[in-house]
Amino acid sequence: MSSTLLSRRDLRFLLYEWLDAPRLTERPRYAEHSRETFDDVLDLAERVAAEHFAPHNRAADTSEPVVDGGRVRMIPQVKAALDVFAGTGLLGASMDESVGGMQLPHVVSAAAFGFLQAANVSTAAYPFLTLGNANLLLARGSAAQVDTFVRPMVEGRFFGTMCLSEPQAGSSLADITTRAEPQDDGSHRLFGTKMWISGGDHELAENIVHLVLARIPGGPPGVKGISLFIVPKVLVGPDGALGARNDVVLVGLNHKMGYRGTTNTLLNFGEGVHRPDGRPGAVGYLVGEPHQGLAQMFHMMNEARIGVGAGATALGYTGYLKSLAYARQRPQGRPLADKDPTVPQVPIVAHPDVRRMLLAQKSYVEGALALVLYCGRLLDEEKTAPDPADRARAHLLLDMLTPITKSWPSQWCLAANDLAIQVHGGYGYTRDYDVEQHWRDNRLNPIHEGTHGIQALDLLGRKATMDGGAGLSLLLETISATVSRAWKADGEAAELAAQLGAAVDRIAGTTRRLWATGDPALALANASLYLEAVGHVVVAWMWLEQLLAVDAATGAAAGGAADGGGDADAAFYAGKRQAARYFFRFELPRTTARFDLLDGLDRTTLDMRDEWF
Amino acid sequence: MSSTLLSRRDLRFLLYEWLDAPRLTERPRYAEHSRETFDDVLDLAERVAAEHFAPHNRAADTSEPVVDGGRVRMIPQVKAALDVFAGTGLLGASMDESVGGMQLPHVVSAAAFGFLQAANVSTAAYPFLTLGNANLLLARGSAAQVDTFVRPMVEGRFFGTMCLSEPQAGSSLADITTRAEPQDDGSHRLFGTKMWISGGDHELAENIVHLVLARIPGGPPGVKGISLFIVPKVLVGPDGALGARNDVVLVGLNHKMGYRGTTNTLLNFGEGVHRPDGRPGAVGYLVGEPHQGLAQMFHMMNEARIGVGAGATALGYTGYLKSLAYARQRPQGRPLADKDPTVPQVPIVAHPDVRRMLLAQKSYVEGALALVLYCGRLLDEEKTAPDPADRARAHLLLDMLTPITKSWPSQWCLAANDLAIQVHGGYGYTRDYDVEQHWRDNRLNPIHEGTHGIQALDLLGRKATMDGGAGLSLLLETISATVSRAWKADGEAAELAAQLGAAVDRIAGTTRRLWATGDPALALANASLYLEAVGHVVVAWMWLEQLLAVDAATGAAAGGAADGGGDADAAFYAGKRQAARYFFRFELPRTTARFDLLDGLDRTTLDMRDEWF
Repeated sequence: MSSTLLSRRDLRFLLYEWLDAPRLTERPRYAEHSRETFDDVLDLAERVAAEHFAPHNRAADTSEPVVDGGRVRMIPQVKAALDVFAGTGLLGASMDESVGGMQLPHVVSAAAFGFLQAANVSTAAYPFLTLGNANLLLARGSAAQVDTFVRPMVEGRFFGTMCLSEPQAGSSLADITTRAEPQDDGSHRLFGTKMWISGGDHELAENIVHLVLARIPGGPPGVKGISLFIVPKVLVGPDGALGARNDVVLVGLNHKMGYRGTTNTLLNFGEGVHRPDGRPGAVGYLVGEPHQGLAQMFHMMNEARIGVGAGATALGYTGYLKSLAYARQRPQGRPLADKDPTVPQVPIVAHPDVRRMLLAQKSYVEGALALVLYCGRLLDEEKTAPDPADRARAHLLLDMLTPITKSWPSQWCLAANDLAIQVHGGYGYTRDYDVEQHWRDNRLNPIHEGTHGIQALDLLGRKATMDGGAGLSLLLETISATVSRAWKADGEAAELAAQLGAAVDRIAGTTRRLWATGDPALALANASLYLEAVGHVVVAWMWLEQLLAVDAATGAAAGGAADGGGDADAAFYAGKRQAARYFFRFELPRTTARFDLLDGLDRTTLDMRDEWF
Repeated sequence: MSSTLLSRRDLRFLLYEWLDAPRLTERPRYAEHSRETFDDVLDLAERVAAEHFAPHNRAADTSEPVVDGGRVRMIPQVKAALDVFAGTGLLGASMDESVGGMQLPHVVSAAAFGFLQAANVSTAAYPFLTLGNANLLLARGSAAQVDTFVRPMVEGRFFGTMCLSEPQAGSSLADITTRAEPQDDGSHRLFGTKMWISGGDHELAENIVHLVLARIPGGPPGVKGISLFIVPKVLVGPDGALGARNDVVLVGLNHKMGYRGTTNTLLNFGEGVHRPDGRPGAVGYLVGEPHQGLAQMFHMMNEARIGVGAGATALGYTGYLKSLAYARQRPQGRPLADKDPTVPQVPIVAHPDVRRMLLAQKSYVEGALALVLYCGRLLDEEKTAPDPADRARAHLLLDMLTPITKSWPSQWCLAANDLAIQVHGGYGYTRDYDVEQHWRDNRLNPIHEGTHGIQALDLLGRKATMDGGAGLSLLLETISATVSRAWKADGEAAELAAQLGAAVDRIAGTTRRLWATGDPALALANASLYLEAVGHVVVAWMWLEQLLAVDAATGAAAGGAADGGGDADAAFYAGKRQAARYFFRFELPRTTARFDLLDGLDRTTLDMRDEWF
């Protein structure tokens, strides 16, 4: 059992000492569960990750999938691992029992999936894509579509994709041109090319269920004319039997810097290679109503965006644990006070600069994991809170947090991986150690499922203003509630609360000031900086929450450094306190310069002209 | 001729409109030269880079060197390019004519070499290592050693390495154990293992001249007992003829994430595989006096450290130009004001967030290049200033700037490469575009030739305190002189000067406060943050210097945005102004939080205990 994927002690803290996940079992949906079943699922996920996913992580990188006679060939360990995973039933961890799921709380399944992503993010991507696809169809598909496509996905027989981008339309979905022509039987025929389709072709499953955005001729231009279709690789009969090959053709694989084990494809729909019934076009089935494709896809996108943040977190977390293990065993140099070259060298964890790099990683990855699980908890609230008002509030808060939970870990857990390499020194730059691959793999996360800049426009341009700013108000109130609790707690928590309270005021003031301009171009000119500053405040909030949980667990509100003596729990809590301190001392103050710049309505990027570069 | 390596317009500005390089030709050493010969050398370097280095940059990455029957095999383009390079005589660009050099100013040769590093950093590494080696021997070797080893290096027949690290001793040179046993004939025999030796074995040259740190038995422990030896791969007779194979054995190649075309080796000395005269040990020749190895190696190290900064800058620069070219031709989305999906998409350079990413890159890479060339200019001053006091001052200032010039570009031009990927979106994450390789290649730079943390200790622990703080005072006075000039210039320069002046005060105050503790462990606890903050101030200084040069060139001290109209020069100057603004508005304010933290004598990393992680 690998101990360098995620920390079980940290998960225990987050799930049981902070988020009180077992309390969810009081609700009917989760009544069959208990802390014991949660732990069993975590055990299972950790074991599968360590025994079946981690061992081929490097091989999946060095021997990436290739196209061979029109078919995708890859190392056999991927399918072997995914078959084991399918056997666990974990894909349906949070789904209804009625479709073969386990009905676990999301907060628990998110923690469990973290092990798989930490162990091998590119093999884990196949079930993750499938999960997002299945959840969308569960929410928006017909009963027949669920029976035909979702059940086999839950069983692990079918895998899923999402097909949005086209070569000329990535961030700009308004510009997709794939068209779907209605047929007499109610189905459609699709024609077009889709780019960047992860898991778009392989032989890991019996079938691949593509969810494809396309235009029905005659619809409105732009995003308002996009519809969503199920396009299976292999047609499925009414009895569930596999039929003829649909006209979905692999044009080629993209060759990436990382995440190499996940096929990333260029697909042609309706090219004419396969004609199951002699007629042209890829057979597709409309999901829901026409022209609702974007809204439907966002159901999946929001989930996928939090999933991206979770994946980034998992990669950051395992890199942190690996660099910590390295720092504890690598002897190099001596403390400053002792220059005597005849005394033995010390492990590098003894050097303050190495401790700085480890503390930074710890504060990033544990902060990010707290945020990811907090979102999982909100999903559970949204689904099961007894009071509908609580559900609505959870939904709104989750909406606010989605761009942050996508982007913050993608930026800072990548930074953690950079520090993990640095802790390893020259060794970290070699392919003999895992951390360089984690860094390469993690670099995808600020790009896919909406780039960093897209998330920034989403947060400041849409989420912060929707419903007259109701979402932003709710976020700030929720953070302020933590600040109030910490004030009362006294001690160090109260100190940090003052700092966080001031940061909350800055978010409110800056947002007001930006939108008071009445000029969207000016307000949004530095949206990325806004996203980053707000993200840091949100993660500071996650750290204050954790500090309060530590106070509660130790009965000590005094905030002083706990004695780290022999007791493992005491050391764990002391580490949490120190990481919280680190974040408030080293990280949160960085936001001041960002808020200042935003408050100044800076025009530098707006005024820059193309010809001046 | 590639236009995406470095900008010739920028070089013209830096060399001729700012640093006034042609003025150096008034000095005897450079009297043979003129602006025309400078331009010829830049033309030559750019052509060789574009035609012989750039074309195999990707191939050198995908087909890295392998060991085959004990010999290193690599793609033939590397040797072909290096043969062309040797034919240009550029290796000796700044060397004395007496040893076959061109006696060009360093500021010019540094600019010329930038093209090679931008085109193909891993092929360029071979001559760069050779250059550092040759310069060390020119400074510290005997006349016979220069004749035997340096001349063939200048001719491109021999290549050089530096062999410092051992598996158990990387950052901690006090712990090297390779031993050198004196022989009756005055030579030594070496026994030991050296790790991370770049260019340590290959068949690109007739011979490889290793410069090796080793201990002569009986010497003092630690760094005081280290001596420097020449250990050629093949022995060289008094007549210069190649003789028997010396006992230097390739144990293996390291497999890196980037910089893959440069062999990086584990070498055994005196393993007993080759015994030229039947006796054990690798034949080595002492350079200078015994036990002076560390000081001698630092002659090379200082040059190498500035070279690392130059290489990082070149990679950042070419990535910037490539992402700019991409942003100008990739259509995606529409301006905020125009959501009509029926109008054509705009090139992404039109989006403010993309302009932000390009401006950030521009400010990093042009700021870094200014710093690198400023250091080149200081080298020329150190060597040729008529007044010895000026030489001493240049030496001291260069000493101060060395850790910054090594680290700042390694951090921020890597950040530039990250942004270059982001500008490319998903395409930037594929190996079809250059930027992902630049990012991987550049990641080495914060590690080798002394890690980021080592540079930080050097700056704050040694350079800032040496000679009673004389070096730091000189640096701050020199920056202050620019501030004073800018004050008088009025307009925007005066505004930025106020900001820079305040930052200079903070450096002075923070340094005083840290050392007033009298506690080196406390003073140095956050040395990396000090390095980063001082680095940002130094680069802000470089930007104010450039702004003043723009003012001088345009006759306008008014600092307002110049009209970017049709005139290429006007657009160039407007771009410099905007990049300077960007740096002062977006970057320099980041240092406040860092200086605040340092002033607070923060103990977070010191107090953290190993068992709390």
